[in-house]
Amino acid sequence: MGTSELGQLPHKVDLSRKRPFGTALRADLKETFFPDDPFRVFSSQSRGRRAWTALQYYVPILEWGAKYNLSKFQFDLLAGITIASLAIPQGISYAKLADIPPIIGLYSAAVPPIIYAIFGSSKQLAVGPVAAASLLMASIIKTEVTPQSDPVLYPKLFFTAAFVTGAMQLSMGILRLGILVDFLSRSTIAGFMGGTAVIIMLQQLKGLLGLKTFTQHTDIVSVIKAVIINRAECKWQSVLVGIVFLCILLGSRHLRTACPRLFWVSAMAPLFVVISGCLIAFLVHGEANGIPTVGDLKKGVNPITIGQLQFKSEHFGVALKAGLIAGFIALAEGIAVGRSLALAANDQIDGNKEMIAYGCMNIVGSFTSCYLTTGPFSKSAVNAHAGCKTQMSNVVHSVCMLLVLLFLAPLFKWTPSVALSAIIVVAMIGLIEYEEYVHLFKVDKVDFLICMVAFFGVSFLSMDMGLVMSVGLSIIRALIYMARPHTSKLGKLGSVDGTYIFRDMEQYPDAVNIPGVLVLTLGSPVYFANAGYLRERISRWLEAEEDYAKKNGDEVNYVVLDLSGVTSIDSSGLGMLKELNVTLERREIKMVLINPRLRVVEKLTKAHVIDLVGSEWVFLTVKDAVTACHFALEESRHKGRAQ
Amino acid sequence: MGTSELGQLPHKVDLSRKRPFGTALRADLKETFFPDDPFRVFSSQSRGRRAWTALQYYVPILEWGAKYNLSKFQFDLLAGITIASLAIPQGISYAKLADIPPIIGLYSAAVPPIIYAIFGSSKQLAVGPVAAASLLMASIIKTEVTPQSDPVLYPKLFFTAAFVTGAMQLSMGILRLGILVDFLSRSTIAGFMGGTAVIIMLQQLKGLLGLKTFTQHTDIVSVIKAVIINRAECKWQSVLVGIVFLCILLGSRHLRTACPRLFWVSAMAPLFVVISGCLIAFLVHGEANGIPTVGDLKKGVNPITIGQLQFKSEHFGVALKAGLIAGFIALAEGIAVGRSLALAANDQIDGNKEMIAYGCMNIVGSFTSCYLTTGPFSKSAVNAHAGCKTQMSNVVHSVCMLLVLLFLAPLFKWTPSVALSAIIVVAMIGLIEYEEYVHLFKVDKVDFLICMVAFFGVSFLSMDMGLVMSVGLSIIRALIYMARPHTSKLGKLGSVDGTYIFRDMEQYPDAVNIPGVLVLTLGSPVYFANAGYLRERISRWLEAEEDYAKKNGDEVNYVVLDLSGVTSIDSSGLGMLKELNVTLERREIKMVLINPRLRVVEKLTKAHVIDLVGSEWVFLTVKDAVTACHFALEESRHKGRAQ
Repeated sequence: MGTSELGQLPHKVDLSRKRPFGTALRADLKETFFPDDPFRVFSSQSRGRRAWTALQYYVPILEWGAKYNLSKFQFDLLAGITIASLAIPQGISYAKLADIPPIIGLYSAAVPPIIYAIFGSSKQLAVGPVAAASLLMASIIKTEVTPQSDPVLYPKLFFTAAFVTGAMQLSMGILRLGILVDFLSRSTIAGFMGGTAVIIMLQQLKGLLGLKTFTQHTDIVSVIKAVIINRAECKWQSVLVGIVFLCILLGSRHLRTACPRLFWVSAMAPLFVVISGCLIAFLVHGEANGIPTVGDLKKGVNPITIGQLQFKSEHFGVALKAGLIAGFIALAEGIAVGRSLALAANDQIDGNKEMIAYGCMNIVGSFTSCYLTTGPFSKSAVNAHAGCKTQMSNVVHSVCMLLVLLFLAPLFKWTPSVALSAIIVVAMIGLIEYEEYVHLFKVDKVDFLICMVAFFGVSFLSMDMGLVMSVGLSIIRALIYMARPHTSKLGKLGSVDGTYIFRDMEQYPDAVNIPGVLVLTLGSPVYFANAGYLRERISRWLEAEEDYAKKNGDEVNYVVLDLSGVTSIDSSGLGMLKELNVTLERREIKMVLINPRLRVVEKLTKAHVIDLVGSEWVFLTVKDAVTACHFALEESRHKGRAQ
Repeated sequence: MGTSELGQLPHKVDLSRKRPFGTALRADLKETFFPDDPFRVFSSQSRGRRAWTALQYYVPILEWGAKYNLSKFQFDLLAGITIASLAIPQGISYAKLADIPPIIGLYSAAVPPIIYAIFGSSKQLAVGPVAAASLLMASIIKTEVTPQSDPVLYPKLFFTAAFVTGAMQLSMGILRLGILVDFLSRSTIAGFMGGTAVIIMLQQLKGLLGLKTFTQHTDIVSVIKAVIINRAECKWQSVLVGIVFLCILLGSRHLRTACPRLFWVSAMAPLFVVISGCLIAFLVHGEANGIPTVGDLKKGVNPITIGQLQFKSEHFGVALKAGLIAGFIALAEGIAVGRSLALAANDQIDGNKEMIAYGCMNIVGSFTSCYLTTGPFSKSAVNAHAGCKTQMSNVVHSVCMLLVLLFLAPLFKWTPSVALSAIIVVAMIGLIEYEEYVHLFKVDKVDFLICMVAFFGVSFLSMDMGLVMSVGLSIIRALIYMARPHTSKLGKLGSVDGTYIFRDMEQYPDAVNIPGVLVLTLGSPVYFANAGYLRERISRWLEAEEDYAKKNGDEVNYVVLDLSGVTSIDSSGLGMLKELNVTLERREIKMVLINPRLRVVEKLTKAHVIDLVGSEWVFLTVKDAVTACHFALEESRHKGRAQ
């Protein structure tokens, strides 16, 4: 039954195309590590020009700085001042959340933005410390050192962790390991952020109730226990001031939703709360009258801390762990924020370049009294809203912070803890994305489960456990998908004008069974994890088809495998096809292959699957294959009758 | 641009089909855990009949036993005696390999075969201890207890590990977790077995050279060091006898290859070597003259050891680890052997049923002085060769072993260690599958790497490290595939008879570009791990297409996404499609979807992607979509001209 006997078939699969190993490997590596093809602009440039383009690629300020002008600066100045006003209360609050001296929070909003402005590729991102990473690092470091047990070492471990984070982010950027961040899904991040928001809000009960003793744990159960046990310490003054501040902040938040043009009111509200809090505390002698304040803040810009990094300390391990875990999450958060703002502005950011920028900013930060920074959503959204045009707004932000540190810092020593707690609580509300959870529940139950595992894992166990469980579940889901790829049986879908196509019979009940021929499509990839399953599943399809055929006094003569959707196959998959061919041949059934893709054709040829099946039984379309099968069937029947 | 204006298109995608959540979940769970659909035979049976079928399903002896007759027994008797003759030397050798009393090796070949005959589904599998698992368990248990430090506890930990193995295998079978075994790829198993064979052969240097002191480590470096250090202990008598035995065994092995009908010569050769070894040792007073022997073997069948299981011992942890790791490998090995023999006999075995059988046999084994057993390849191949018809050959095997234990066991105390070492070395040669490695190198470089990682990891590090690294690499490969799915641009492939189809332009350079329309196929699945990549990759395709179009004074008006190959999509993937739609709309480009599959249509509808794209822009074939795009383009140009 050679091709010549099978009538005229218009197309054949090109079985001769083979890429040399080097070419194939290079193509695969490029897709894996350089999916954005950053060098494509080089192709048409001279050597000198190329060096300049490369430098611009790694230092974006050279690109946008050259085109910078005064009209852009007006916008950036306004945006920079706005985010600086938000950075002061946020810096102090998040430092309190991490239990480090509040001045470190202000330092961390001063140096990193300048570094980001040089290396960063996002126009909208505003840099500073974030709540989730602050609490996460504190919870990890406190397992070994607490601010009470060693108040000098404790902040040094934060600088060390920031260095670790920076080194990790920088090397991920250079090694182009952006692929790792891809494994933190949106569902995981949504659940993680929501759970974190819940436990961060609960932590604020300490400040809002004016408690002195509290728990070092972050989970819901421990915190609620601590509040109940220490309820006698509760100060009514704190509670009263807290309620007033919460109302102001919630009101301004509501105003932003109702009237987006007044976004600056909600952007300034935290600073207003801090300043009025300072005034109240100053006037009523807060510390003595039930309104604890943050305490002394020294005047002066960031001291150099390069000598304080604890690489040789016995506690380096815990700083390493904190830096890696919190840094990874901060990176994912920053890139997600950058991407969503870029999308809104019809712009694009480069994940690998961002990692390099984050890395540089955290390394330089760790040398200059800063702890971990990234691009927090609240601040970046305000920056975008305020109309920033370029990364210059971060420079303005930085200058403002340095001026505050030089002249105003000591004034903030009156800031009441309750004001900071109120600011944090309101900032956290937006992180619990009810609507996203409902959406996930409606669209994809597994994603909803992944999200809830992160949410409840974080709230009831610990932040890192919640994250690990959720990522683990996402990966298990992906592996189960891999182990049980979808197969379906195709039927003929005819039409008025005489043409017909082949589609899944489950999906299109109108599709008609093809007598004598079983057409199956395989999902991708055909790998070790599913080779055994596919073999069994195909024999099950065949058994069902034979039962059906027998009822109609017919038999199955061909099994046609549509490989159009199979983009990758490994040696186990190839072995499975060979075994299937042997089994089918024993039952006098012919195996036919349809439309194998480039990478698959190469492997099928190398593994001699094509030789076993016969190249004349490899077709480009299902229609060609079915035509050829029916033609051959007719012919053999004729022969049978003739004999 | 509604459908009505787009001319007559023969087919539409059925967007109304939606399966209730319960139905979809049930279908997915069934494919995941019951891929073999074991209950399909029940559908047409009465209740009483169903119970009987279910019982037969779990206890296959009820099925084949009912049809058993004398003519089958003739074959099974011969096969059973043949494998028993192989089981005696193998049992003693593998027990020596595990450093447990040799009699345990004989016990382990006596009870488990009967249990397997009751519950097992493979006709060809012959049950007994295996070399790899023996050495692996010994290397794990020796980290805490050695036979020198506590000769009483040491074998008890082996019984405990066997119980753990049995419990694990039984529960995996009941919970239908055969899916886990799927993740041990053939490449991993080939490399692991090869590496294990190398280190097991090296271990035999002790016996072949007649050394007294040796290392507890298994890696190549430690073993060679130990041989060099202890070279003074070397006995020429052992070496001489060893060479003779090796020649006999290799000769018989060669005979089997040259003349397959004489397989029984090679099957009997190990027993012949043991018996002649016993004679030599007895005649020359071996122990005193440089030929160490195995020492006392007590007469009598398996003693009950149910009370000796060490669940409350401080060393239970190590037994648990040994039982789980070795049990998992033994399971994979046994199922692989069962599958390949079943395939050769045009038969099928049921992985989950096999796990239940293995579980029962190891649990019962651990109660009756047996250590871990599975289906070794050498013994099972001999069983199949000898012409066994049913599981009855295992019963015969078992009876033979019990008779040996009752009457002949003490005679084997003269067995020289060198004979056992020679037997093991020759048995191991077949496990180093050079040809498979070459085949893997030719067909799939990554699979070759996975295989070599297992091979060298086992030889130079340790058995468990080699295995974990190799499985880890397989999973990373699968995850990278997931994170970087293949996309390709389709072009028009015309033909003489006027029909045309759309195929990958890289694969078919004849394919013609479609002006104004960019057709892309996406690989499967569209998941969180690749949503970001796909978004960037699609914009890169679009950019390249726009550059090309600009050169021809044209522009790109449509991006057509062929979803035929996408069998699964999650919420991140859906989000990506929505974002892509927004980005394209901003650039006045229309997004068009082709042939979404059943599961994908459901999600697209739920997530309102169909609403955003417009259901009139979802087509069943690329041809329909391109026709519609060109029709709409013509129309808008006409309108443009008319204005």
